Amino acid sequence: MTRNEVIQRDDNDPLASYRTEFDLPDNTIYLDGNSLGAIPHRVKKRVAETVEQQWGNDLITSWNKHQWVNLPEIVGEKIAPIIGAGKGQVICCDSISVNLFKLLSAALSYNGSPERRFILSTEDNFPTDGYIAQGLQELLGAGQCQFKAVDEEQLSAAIDQQVAVVLVTEVNFRSGRRLDINKLTQRAHQNGALIVVDLAHSAGVMPVDLDAWQVDMAVGCTYKYLNGGPGAPAFLYLNRKWHSKIKQPVAGWFGHRSPFDFNPDYQASSGVKQFLAGTPSILSMAAVDSALELFAEIDMQQVRLKSQQLTSLFQQLAEQYQLTRHLSLLSPLLAEARGSQLSYAHDQAYGICQALIKRGVVADFRAPCYIRFGFAPLYNSYTDVYDAVAQLRHVIEQQEHLQKRWQQRQAVT
Amino acid sequence: MTRNEVIQRDDNDPLASYRTEFDLPDNTIYLDGNSLGAIPHRVKKRVAETVEQQWGNDLITSWNKHQWVNLPEIVGEKIAPIIGAGKGQVICCDSISVNLFKLLSAALSYNGSPERRFILSTEDNFPTDGYIAQGLQELLGAGQCQFKAVDEEQLSAAIDQQVAVVLVTEVNFRSGRRLDINKLTQRAHQNGALIVVDLAHSAGVMPVDLDAWQVDMAVGCTYKYLNGGPGAPAFLYLNRKWHSKIKQPVAGWFGHRSPFDFNPDYQASSGVKQFLAGTPSILSMAAVDSALELFAEIDMQQVRLKSQQLTSLFQQLAEQYQLTRHLSLLSPLLAEARGSQLSYAHDQAYGICQALIKRGVVADFRAPCYIRFGFAPLYNSYTDVYDAVAQLRHVIEQQEHLQKRWQQRQAVT
Repeated sequence: MTRNEVIQRDDNDPLASYRTEFDLPDNTIYLDGNSLGAIPHRVKKRVAETVEQQWGNDLITSWNKHQWVNLPEIVGEKIAPIIGAGKGQVICCDSISVNLFKLLSAALSYNGSPERRFILSTEDNFPTDGYIAQGLQELLGAGQCQFKAVDEEQLSAAIDQQVAVVLVTEVNFRSGRRLDINKLTQRAHQNGALIVVDLAHSAGVMPVDLDAWQVDMAVGCTYKYLNGGPGAPAFLYLNRKWHSKIKQPVAGWFGHRSPFDFNPDYQASSGVKQFLAGTPSILSMAAVDSALELFAEIDMQQVRLKSQQLTSLFQQLAEQYQLTRHLSLLSPLLAEARGSQLSYAHDQAYGICQALIKRGVVADFRAPCYIRFGFAPLYNSYTDVYDAVAQLRHVIEQQEHLQKRWQQRQAVT
Repeated sequence: MTRNEVIQRDDNDPLASYRTEFDLPDNTIYLDGNSLGAIPHRVKKRVAETVEQQWGNDLITSWNKHQWVNLPEIVGEKIAPIIGAGKGQVICCDSISVNLFKLLSAALSYNGSPERRFILSTEDNFPTDGYIAQGLQELLGAGQCQFKAVDEEQLSAAIDQQVAVVLVTEVNFRSGRRLDINKLTQRAHQNGALIVVDLAHSAGVMPVDLDAWQVDMAVGCTYKYLNGGPGAPAFLYLNRKWHSKIKQPVAGWFGHRSPFDFNPDYQASSGVKQFLAGTPSILSMAAVDSALELFAEIDMQQVRLKSQQLTSLFQQLAEQYQLTRHLSLLSPLLAEARGSQLSYAHDQAYGICQALIKRGVVADFRAPCYIRFGFAPLYNSYTDVYDAVAQLRHVIEQQEHLQKRWQQRQAVT
């Protein structure tokens, strides 16, 4: 595989033009869109307009004039087709952590009992998911709600009649391994459990079919593959079948049926809107709304295909240059079985990561010994992959990761 | 009182220069800073820098390089002196609704029991405060947590040994009436109750002394008098005495002792940091951080003095022009007894509000029959007040509020 062959793949890439929609830093190959997506040009314009014209000039009238009040639903409807959800089931609000708290509480209050009290998840789920379940256990008491985590391999078998809710992330943040949500949903339902799916590493990079899979509830992130900006509000999906059956406890005024009547008694809005709580963060949400315009015409099958080809090309080149003698692949070898990332284990993973950053390749380190490369099909090219592996080869062959004592710093997913 | 006399008061106003820090729309007198504060010039610059340089160019490295990861505490420390809080007790995160849920849960888990199960509040508190308490009652069961609301006049007397938490807003959103938090705190503590104070209409417009008053917990808003932008994240205060005693249930990863170790077991951070949940909304929080710079040198006593003089001047002029024959003052007549707003009742309050907006005076309507005028001492002048009353006189005398059938629209606090 030569660089010229790779350039040809870019020339034939039907998604190639999307790269021009993004502002990418000079002399950098950014393979960390699974942590923080790059900025679409249009978002700069939209944020400036929201700040200067809407807030600055139209002030309070913007809540109606510029639809601020409806942004959680407007953004939700833009996310819906990306995750296979029909209308009226998705809103954008709060964080994944807060949204999981609302959903798990609601699921438990409907489906939980001392006999069916387990929130079942995986040991290697993204920590905040398990933390939220642990917080609920502390609040409600282990007799009502008990968190249990098993190995990913054991998850399906562990779903039994004592499980009230299965809490699962489709793509593992560390390994990139992808679970079969369709099958897990069936298994959960066969055992009378609900399923809550975390789409943090799925939404925007692969087809997701929540309605078809009959998933009960889901959350996801807008600041990774959806490019909504740092700490942008999360999204929340509630399957229509639960709209009139479920109540959530964080009963803020934006979830009220008529928030502007200022009625002292809480009356939940119908449908997914009752999962809104406080006043939405407009600047952040406007950024998400704008970033999502890029997905209006997109074919998620095509995005997935390119994503698989990008990860496969990286692994293939890593093998070609015998880098895999040093770096041990943590992600599944089969592209279909993983998300849009590759993770490798190495004793000096942190040093490799820092040496790569110095060479202009941004990947990230995950404790204790993993380096993650994330591939965003909307702006990463095949040439990016080729050049990144070339830099990795330099680092490894010249032992740059050993030359300095890299100080371990904090990293953020 | 003539316009020239009023202009002279502006000339002698020690806070007058702050007005130049704000971008105010042309031909508008903005008396709605108690809903959404005006934009400080510097915020535009800061948001653009955060979007273009930090997100756009430095991408994931900004979490450390630009201190994104510490913004909740950095912003909290800037708010602390404005509300009379010593270091390490305030963070900026989530919404008032979500923060109240966390605080009330924590207070109840420490101080609640079937014998002491009431969350006591006022009937006319801002609705979301009561809604959150009602949501908690639904979640925990009325045997463990029961919400009770009484008339403001009766609040102090209603605090008894059955009350676990007093939940009170210092300044009533509708009437502008100010409660004596110091006395209520003493009364709560004498009866073994904790107190949670909502400072939405206090922070940034009057001195608040949380530490001196020994308040247990507080929340507040950054998008009103602190000018942080639409839906900007709220703040949360936890008195130091509770730092090692209290646990909150929304156990997201940012509240973990070492979030970037990705440890599967939740271990709460010490102090107020455990009240963080999900990833913070950086664009919105950067705006708040920048807006707060205006408060670095400010004397809150001076702000309060001007606030009282602004409200008093408005009422005095309204009386001088006999507008108070039509508009009945809902706010306390004594400036000391109210916040920085005046509310009047009128059958056609909505029409008056709309007619005023047409004349360039922005106030707001609150159901069913109130018009609110909010006064922001950092950018409202005495001349603003004079000119606003003159316009109000036109509206009333020429019955403009009756000339059109104003359609009732939604309004946002």
